[in-house]
Amino acid sequence: MTRIVCRQLAPTLGDLPGNHRQILRVIEEETSAGTDVLVLPELVTSGYVFETVDEVDACAITPHDPLVSEWAAAIRGGSVVILGFAERGEDGLFYNGAMLLDAGGVLATYRKAHLWDDEKRFFTPGSQPPPVVETRFGRIGFMVCYDFEFPEFPRRCALEGAELIAVPTNWPLVRRPEGERPPEWHLAQAAARVNRVVIACCDRTGTERGQQWTEGTAIFDQYGWLASAASSSAGALADAEGAEHRAEYEADLAATRDKSFNPNNDLFGDRRPELYL
Amino acid sequence: MTRIVCRQLAPTLGDLPGNHRQILRVIEEETSAGTDVLVLPELVTSGYVFETVDEVDACAITPHDPLVSEWAAAIRGGSVVILGFAERGEDGLFYNGAMLLDAGGVLATYRKAHLWDDEKRFFTPGSQPPPVVETRFGRIGFMVCYDFEFPEFPRRCALEGAELIAVPTNWPLVRRPEGERPPEWHLAQAAARVNRVVIACCDRTGTERGQQWTEGTAIFDQYGWLASAASSSAGALADAEGAEHRAEYEADLAATRDKSFNPNNDLFGDRRPELYL
Repeated sequence: MTRIVCRQLAPTLGDLPGNHRQILRVIEEETSAGTDVLVLPELVTSGYVFETVDEVDACAITPHDPLVSEWAAAIRGGSVVILGFAERGEDGLFYNGAMLLDAGGVLATYRKAHLWDDEKRFFTPGSQPPPVVETRFGRIGFMVCYDFEFPEFPRRCALEGAELIAVPTNWPLVRRPEGERPPEWHLAQAAARVNRVVIACCDRTGTERGQQWTEGTAIFDQYGWLASAASSSAGALADAEGAEHRAEYEADLAATRDKSFNPNNDLFGDRRPELYL
Repeated sequence: MTRIVCRQLAPTLGDLPGNHRQILRVIEEETSAGTDVLVLPELVTSGYVFETVDEVDACAITPHDPLVSEWAAAIRGGSVVILGFAERGEDGLFYNGAMLLDAGGVLATYRKAHLWDDEKRFFTPGSQPPPVVETRFGRIGFMVCYDFEFPEFPRRCALEGAELIAVPTNWPLVRRPEGERPPEWHLAQAAARVNRVVIACCDRTGTERGQQWTEGTAIFDQYGWLASAASSSAGALADAEGAEHRAEYEADLAATRDKSFNPNNDLFGDRRPELYL
């Protein structure tokens, strides 16, 4: 079994040193307590609500930054960490980046390919699909926030063998009818179910320049059921006591490899790609 | 506004004349009462739980069957009906079929492309994608049950301009954790939201050879919210009094054509097909 944890942090806008210390502390805390796969939010190094490119410039880092080495050094045992960061490209451009690292360093990086709203003012969209990384816990795919609203992306990861899809996010709070879960949960539940993969979405907290967040951090099992939710604001199964800002789920990732429903049906075997656009 | 109604009927296995009378009655009832788009279940002419091919043979019809003309003749005004039927192909094979008809007759037919479990013993899978039909109410795409569990299918319909996707279904009842909606609802909510289309799923009722159904008939608006649900067994927003076995929603289908979220984001414009498999 693989212990997956999402920590719904509140980065401080532009405060790279402070955010770095928070990341370092949480990595140490979780990986020394037996968390196998730790997922942190989108742009957890920088915050989100930028107003100028200079603000991004002031806190963007490359994946080779010494801070990243400190994170890797803080990882206990064989644990794996996925987080989002404001990336300074070697081309001088900025990207809404994400990385997967273990104690040995960065195993894969990714640049958000579908940019949301004002992100387009600050970031260049990535040109590569989401990575699927072989780890000691199984194959982990990852992407960032709005990427996940394109079902082609989780599908692609799953077809490439992902058993877990980690999604660092910053979900701006949207109104929803009473009794409804956050809209992104439906997307996650559907993506988990149609691909039979575990999905771990790590949202953020901490109002920033007036922007509130869904605080919808949640982990879904491979049948699409809500397995763990961090925050009471996200409703449904949340446990207001103790569960705040942290979701944890012990997943049987190997079980996701079996895509059959019954002797006659297999989720992937039944696909008809020749009929898809 | 377009009044969409799903009627969660209970066909009788193999009783084509009886099922025909039920279909006729419901078409007359609904279309004379102002229903614009009526959706009926999968295999509503025949029932579902076949044990032999002979049973299918005994009640399969072609889209040119005189019964179909009676249905068309029963449609009042400009209403449109979508239903599932056991189809006798001109090739001598059987298909899990669906059709869209109005008072003038059949406008489009479809053969289920993704077959579920024992259906593979009785039916041949279709070789065409789901149709998207221009009607006086807007563009309507339709598919059958398990088809809908492949997100490529609703995506395809939406990219081809569907404003409403109608899904005749027979959802076998599956266990779900307390507090969870039927799994198919998450898929529908996600498909509605990522494609900004209205989705009307018409399930069936009436235990057949011991098989129970989800009775999960529901209509979802283009933001993925549950707009109307037929049966109390499907949980959440169902109204046990009066709402049984019927879902109704007045949809603004023209509004689904606007795929924008904000001046910077458009659901379809933001797609990155070059990164999809």
